[in-house]
Amino acid sequence: MPDDEPFVVTPYEVKGRIDYARLREQFGTQELTADLLARLRVACGGELHPLLARGIYYSHRDLSVILDRAAAGRPFFLYSGRGPSGPLHVSHLVSFEICRWLQARLGAPMYIQITDDEKFWARSGLSREETARWGLENLYDILAVGFDPRRTRVFFDSRSIAALYPLAIRVARKIPYSTVKAVFGFEPSANIGLIFYTALQSVPCFWPSWETGEEVPCLIPCGIDQDPHFRVTRDIAEGLGYPKPALLHSQMIPGLLGDAAMSTTGNAADNALFLNDPPKVVERKVKNAFTGGRATVEEQRRLGATPEICSVWALWKTRFARSDEEFERVTADCRSGALLCGECKGRLLERIHGFYAEHAVAREKAKAWAESAIVTEAPRPL
Amino acid sequence: MPDDEPFVVTPYEVKGRIDYARLREQFGTQELTADLLARLRVACGGELHPLLARGIYYSHRDLSVILDRAAAGRPFFLYSGRGPSGPLHVSHLVSFEICRWLQARLGAPMYIQITDDEKFWARSGLSREETARWGLENLYDILAVGFDPRRTRVFFDSRSIAALYPLAIRVARKIPYSTVKAVFGFEPSANIGLIFYTALQSVPCFWPSWETGEEVPCLIPCGIDQDPHFRVTRDIAEGLGYPKPALLHSQMIPGLLGDAAMSTTGNAADNALFLNDPPKVVERKVKNAFTGGRATVEEQRRLGATPEICSVWALWKTRFARSDEEFERVTADCRSGALLCGECKGRLLERIHGFYAEHAVAREKAKAWAESAIVTEAPRPL
Repeated sequence: MPDDEPFVVTPYEVKGRIDYARLREQFGTQELTADLLARLRVACGGELHPLLARGIYYSHRDLSVILDRAAAGRPFFLYSGRGPSGPLHVSHLVSFEICRWLQARLGAPMYIQITDDEKFWARSGLSREETARWGLENLYDILAVGFDPRRTRVFFDSRSIAALYPLAIRVARKIPYSTVKAVFGFEPSANIGLIFYTALQSVPCFWPSWETGEEVPCLIPCGIDQDPHFRVTRDIAEGLGYPKPALLHSQMIPGLLGDAAMSTTGNAADNALFLNDPPKVVERKVKNAFTGGRATVEEQRRLGATPEICSVWALWKTRFARSDEEFERVTADCRSGALLCGECKGRLLERIHGFYAEHAVAREKAKAWAESAIVTEAPRPL
Repeated sequence: MPDDEPFVVTPYEVKGRIDYARLREQFGTQELTADLLARLRVACGGELHPLLARGIYYSHRDLSVILDRAAAGRPFFLYSGRGPSGPLHVSHLVSFEICRWLQARLGAPMYIQITDDEKFWARSGLSREETARWGLENLYDILAVGFDPRRTRVFFDSRSIAALYPLAIRVARKIPYSTVKAVFGFEPSANIGLIFYTALQSVPCFWPSWETGEEVPCLIPCGIDQDPHFRVTRDIAEGLGYPKPALLHSQMIPGLLGDAAMSTTGNAADNALFLNDPPKVVERKVKNAFTGGRATVEEQRRLGATPEICSVWALWKTRFARSDEEFERVTADCRSGALLCGECKGRLLERIHGFYAEHAVAREKAKAWAESAIVTEAPRPL
C-alpha cells in the first residue's frame, strides 16, 4: 500500500495505513510529551506502564487537568468501554490494562460501559441476543484484567438504561444531527439508534459529577478511533455544568494479517487473536501472522528483519514482553537477523498460552462479582 | 386568509387553514365511511359517541381490522398519548374522551404514553423539570376523563424507560434517518433526541404482543397531525413480527382566536382553554373568542351567523352540547340569527364551569391511582 494512500479513522471504520502524527493533527489532539509522561511517572510512584513508556499511548486531551487533580489528592475517575460485537481480542485489552494500572496506582474509581445497544445498531448482521450475550462475555474478560471490585462500576446499556437515561435526555438536546453527521460521517441510511447513541456514551463522563454535585472530571484511555465520541462530549460538557472529559489515546494494534488495526469487521477472523481462541487456533494464527521477515532465512540472517511492520513484534511490544530489557532484546535480535520469525513466534506462543491460562482463572473469579457491578439506578433525580 | 394558502400539518407544526379532505389524501389515510360508522355503532351497543357522529373523527387506517376483532371477541387495545409542554386544554381531551368511551363500550385495555423526553427535545424553551411536572399534571387530567384503573396502564417515558427500551432498540434499527427526515421534515439542526424519539412512540403499539407472544393489534385515536409517527410504526411493524397499529384520526379543534388548531405553540395563551384556567380566565377567553357573528346585532338578527367558522360553536360540537338535539338547536338558532353570540357564549360558559367543577373532583380521585398505573418493567426479556 503506497504511503500516500488516504486513511480513514472513525469509531465505525478504520482503513488504510494510519499516519498517527497526522491523525493527531486532524483530530486536534495534543502530543503526549516527555514532560507529561514524567509527571505521570511521578504520580504513579516512579514507574510508567510499558504501554506508556513504549509510545503506544501517544496523544491526549487535558491530561494535565487529571495530573493536577492527582497531585492535589482531589477526586477523578477512569472510564472506558466496549461495543460487544463478538469475543474480545488481545488488542481490546490495551485500554483496560492501562485503566487497571492507573486504578491500582492512583486509587481512582473505574467505570466500564458495555454498549450492547450501539453494536446492535452499528452491525446489521448481529442479533440482540448476540450483542447482549457478548456484552456479558466481554464484561467477564474486562473485569478479569484485574479491576478492584470495590471501585469499579459497569454501565451495561440495555440493563442500565434507567440509570443513564435521565442524563442522556439532557445530553441529547445539546447535540444537533449536523454534528454527529460531521463527526461520524453518517449516511442518510444510518438508523436513528446509531444517531442517538453518542448521547448515551457521554453519560458516564458526567456520572460522578451528577452523583456528588461536585465537578469530578474523568480520564478516558481509549483507541484514538473513539476520540470523535468524546469530542462531542467535550463540546457540550460545560453547557451542562460538567467538566470536560480528559483523554489518553492509543494507537491501534496492528492485525495479524498486517492490517492497520486488529479488527475483524471485514470478517477476517485470523486478523485477531481472540481471548476465547483455543490453543490450537492461537497457534495457527500466530504461525500465519504477518511479520517483517525476509523472503529467505539466508537473507534474513544477513540483512535482519523489520520489527516496525511486524504484527508479532507489536504483540511483544503491547503486552507479552515481561520487561523493557526483554523487549529491547527481541527488537535488537530481530533487527540484526539473530532471531528468526519461526523462533520468535514459538517464544511468543508460549507466552500467550501462559497468559490465556492465567486469564481463564481470573475470568472465573470476575464472574462472581460482575452482576453486582452493573448500575441500574440513577444516583438522584435530575 | 385565502383558501388556497398552503397548510402544514406535522406532529411538530400545524399552520394555515387545513383542507381536511386534501390532508387525508396527502397522508394516504382512509375515509371514515358511513358503513364503518354503522359497524362501530353496532359494536358499541347501538350508539355512536358525538365525536364520531358529528364527523370530528373523519379518517382512519385499518379500523376494520379492529372491528373484526371486536366482532369476534378477540383482544385488541387502545393507545394514545400526550407531549407534556404545559397544561392540557380542552381540545386535548378529544382523543382521551373517545378512548374512554371505547374502553367502556368494548372493554379494551388503554395505554397512555406521556412523552416528557420528547417535549424537552422538541421545545428548547422548556426545562426538564417543566416537562416532568407537566407530565404528571397532564396524566391526572387524562385519567380524570374516566378510565378504568384495572385496565389502564401508563408509559411515562422518563420513568418507564427500562420497560420501553428493550423494544425501542429493535425498533430504532429499522428506521433510517432519511425516513424521519422525510416524514417529520427535520432540519439538520434537529437534536439527536428528537430524531430517535419516534422509536419510543412505537413501543406501546407492540407492547401487548410482546407481553403475550400473540398478535394483539391496537387502535390509536389521535389528531391527524400525529399520523406521521404511526405511519413510520406501521412500516416497520411486520418486519418485527407485530401487527400494524390501526388509527382513528380527528380533525384539529379550532383555537379560540380563530386559528386552525387550539394550540399555544405560538405563545397565544388566549387561543386555548386550559383545564387549569380559573373561572375568571375562562370567562375572559370565551368572551373574547372568535365567532361567526356579524358586525352588528341588527345584521346578525337579519342574516344569521356562520357556525362553521366559529370557535364557540366548535366547543358545543366537540364536548359541551349534551345531546344531538341541543347541538342541532344551537346550530339552527345561530344560523337563523335567533341566537346572538353574547347569549351563546353565556350559555356555553355555564356549561364549561360545570364541566370544570366535575373534572376537578375526578382529578383528585385519579391522583390516588396514577402512580400505580405507571409501567416500569419490561414484561419479559427481549
